[in-house]
Amino acid sequence: MKLLHTADWHIGRRLHGFDLTDEQQNAFDQIERIAQAEQVDGMIIAGDLYDRRLPSEASVAMVDEMLQKLNLVDQLPIYAVSGNHDSATRLATGTPWFKSTQLYLHTELSQAFNPVELADTQLFLCPYFEPFDAQQYFKDDSLQHLDQAFKRVVLEMKKKFDPAKKHLLVAHFFAAGSSTTDSETNLTVGGLAAVPTDLLTDFDYVALGHLHGKDALQTPTVRYSGSPVKFSLSEAKQEKGVWIVDTEKSPVALTFKPITPIHDVKQVTGSFDELMASTDDESIDHENYVGITLTDKQPIPNVMARLRDVFPRIVTLGRADGFEAQVRYQGESSQQIRQKSPMALLGDFYQKIAKEPLSPQQEKWAKTALKAAHEEETQA
Amino acid sequence: MKLLHTADWHIGRRLHGFDLTDEQQNAFDQIERIAQAEQVDGMIIAGDLYDRRLPSEASVAMVDEMLQKLNLVDQLPIYAVSGNHDSATRLATGTPWFKSTQLYLHTELSQAFNPVELADTQLFLCPYFEPFDAQQYFKDDSLQHLDQAFKRVVLEMKKKFDPAKKHLLVAHFFAAGSSTTDSETNLTVGGLAAVPTDLLTDFDYVALGHLHGKDALQTPTVRYSGSPVKFSLSEAKQEKGVWIVDTEKSPVALTFKPITPIHDVKQVTGSFDELMASTDDESIDHENYVGITLTDKQPIPNVMARLRDVFPRIVTLGRADGFEAQVRYQGESSQQIRQKSPMALLGDFYQKIAKEPLSPQQEKWAKTALKAAHEEETQA
Repeated sequence: MKLLHTADWHIGRRLHGFDLTDEQQNAFDQIERIAQAEQVDGMIIAGDLYDRRLPSEASVAMVDEMLQKLNLVDQLPIYAVSGNHDSATRLATGTPWFKSTQLYLHTELSQAFNPVELADTQLFLCPYFEPFDAQQYFKDDSLQHLDQAFKRVVLEMKKKFDPAKKHLLVAHFFAAGSSTTDSETNLTVGGLAAVPTDLLTDFDYVALGHLHGKDALQTPTVRYSGSPVKFSLSEAKQEKGVWIVDTEKSPVALTFKPITPIHDVKQVTGSFDELMASTDDESIDHENYVGITLTDKQPIPNVMARLRDVFPRIVTLGRADGFEAQVRYQGESSQQIRQKSPMALLGDFYQKIAKEPLSPQQEKWAKTALKAAHEEETQA
Repeated sequence: MKLLHTADWHIGRRLHGFDLTDEQQNAFDQIERIAQAEQVDGMIIAGDLYDRRLPSEASVAMVDEMLQKLNLVDQLPIYAVSGNHDSATRLATGTPWFKSTQLYLHTELSQAFNPVELADTQLFLCPYFEPFDAQQYFKDDSLQHLDQAFKRVVLEMKKKFDPAKKHLLVAHFFAAGSSTTDSETNLTVGGLAAVPTDLLTDFDYVALGHLHGKDALQTPTVRYSGSPVKFSLSEAKQEKGVWIVDTEKSPVALTFKPITPIHDVKQVTGSFDELMASTDDESIDHENYVGITLTDKQPIPNVMARLRDVFPRIVTLGRADGFEAQVRYQGESSQQIRQKSPMALLGDFYQKIAKEPLSPQQEKWAKTALKAAHEEETQA
């Protein structure tokens, strides 16, 4: 059986104020074409269809249209779960009717133990859940942490295992060993909220959602698909796409199918003058969403507006080694510092931040200013 | 064919701060039992399933469960439209799947012209719409008002009329001749936003939603079902329930099936002492939601808290003929008024508001107070 594995659509998400609707629609259209070209038998969506629990009407209409397209027009079975960004209750609307066309959308832990039974495969769809939900379901207060809870969940699933079939798991959580990026906002990194991957070895394949990079886990049978769109600068170097999972092979054969964005998300580093003069540089796509790092040290008036003439989609703007945010006076006591002259203090300060001494001209300006300030103070 | 006609569930609504969830669930349970006892062939829900466009998760879960109960458990066909309180977009989620079990839920004007075809009946489901939607749909800017727009809508529906069948319309709007109550908050009363009932004579029955009283229209073939629960004090005297519509008869035969609330909504009038002493009066149900009108004229300290000991569900509290809000000095010019003594002015004022002169004791208190005020003023 051939399945397409995607996750973390986050419909409704914005990138530092930029509307990503077109990017998300473009990525969806490519996912649909990949499914058709690969003639997959079904599609896995491993949680976070929406970016927020209370999605806008536009987001609701978009997700609804996407699911209709895949399931009703393309007649593709869908195996989906809710993620931590979804409202399980809102996503659950209408789900009993969806099964008539093989759209399975599990939003409650209790549903995880009723696998979708295919001819040669059992598909366990486990929605995002908190340890508290497992405590309630199993009536067991000892399930305090996600690893404990998930161990119990797997135990329960294994009771349903049909030894004649393959066993696939769709889930949405942080698996140990994963690397993290900025855009998994609700993530608690660390042991308490993580599932060790060794709990997942009983499955022929585990299709995960939650982390946005496909390489967050490298295990052969447990993978994140990653998001189809880059949602933060920390994802700039990631390759986005979907997995095609062939369950006939043992272990399952995985092929990554990339998705090409309309505008990519990239880091750009250079001096202000270099960047302003880069319009003819074909190695730089000025239409990308860019995080710009300037190598300049001097102040640049109206810098953002001027850079936007060349890069219309600036996401962040920073300095490589310009004005430091924090200055530490190492080796000098406050007593020593208090004995220094204002001019000496200013010189030290400039040296710390700009990594070079005041120029003779700067020193002259500073002395004039300090003198004027001193005179005003004396007169007051 | 036998149909149950209900509307205006307004799930999520509160009554002056009181949670109506239990009342709404109770009314729903009775509707379900009526449908079973009457062995109806289907249920009409004529709009406003939700109270607001952005319903809470609890409301979403409640409506979802109700529709599942009726359609999937009781296997009852449902013919529903969105009302002005619903979000058409949110309500539309999943609707293409619902048709597989004969749950028809129309949320867009374009759907109004594809009737549900039953053996002997065509059911036109017309969601709430604004004249602007009709302008867009018909590409006709002349459809400025609802009566113009609806005339055009009916014309379009009649093109689809099968003369061998009966024609039923489900819609949600203000029909001319209707009386209005406080709780149709978004209603524009008057000609512009009303549909004259003579536009509706081509249908064998028109099942309306929008107004909350079943008697708002008395025409034999055009009826509001009213809401199943009282949502405001202005609905205190209404009888709540559903219509059973028998389309075999000509004209259709209508039977009203009442719904009994857990706690009714009632107006209560009496003096404070009478009401406080009414605990043994079995003609008064103290558990009702009550709008209390006091006949007393004098101030009553801590009146609300004391009344709540006897009536735990007070919705409003007013005075029958106590302190008037507005006082008009008829017949006296401002010149005449200015020449009156403070004591005379106070006496006039009290007479106007309390409808009786100051008592000797009150006059004595007033004189003492005025004297003290005058002394303070002179010293200052």
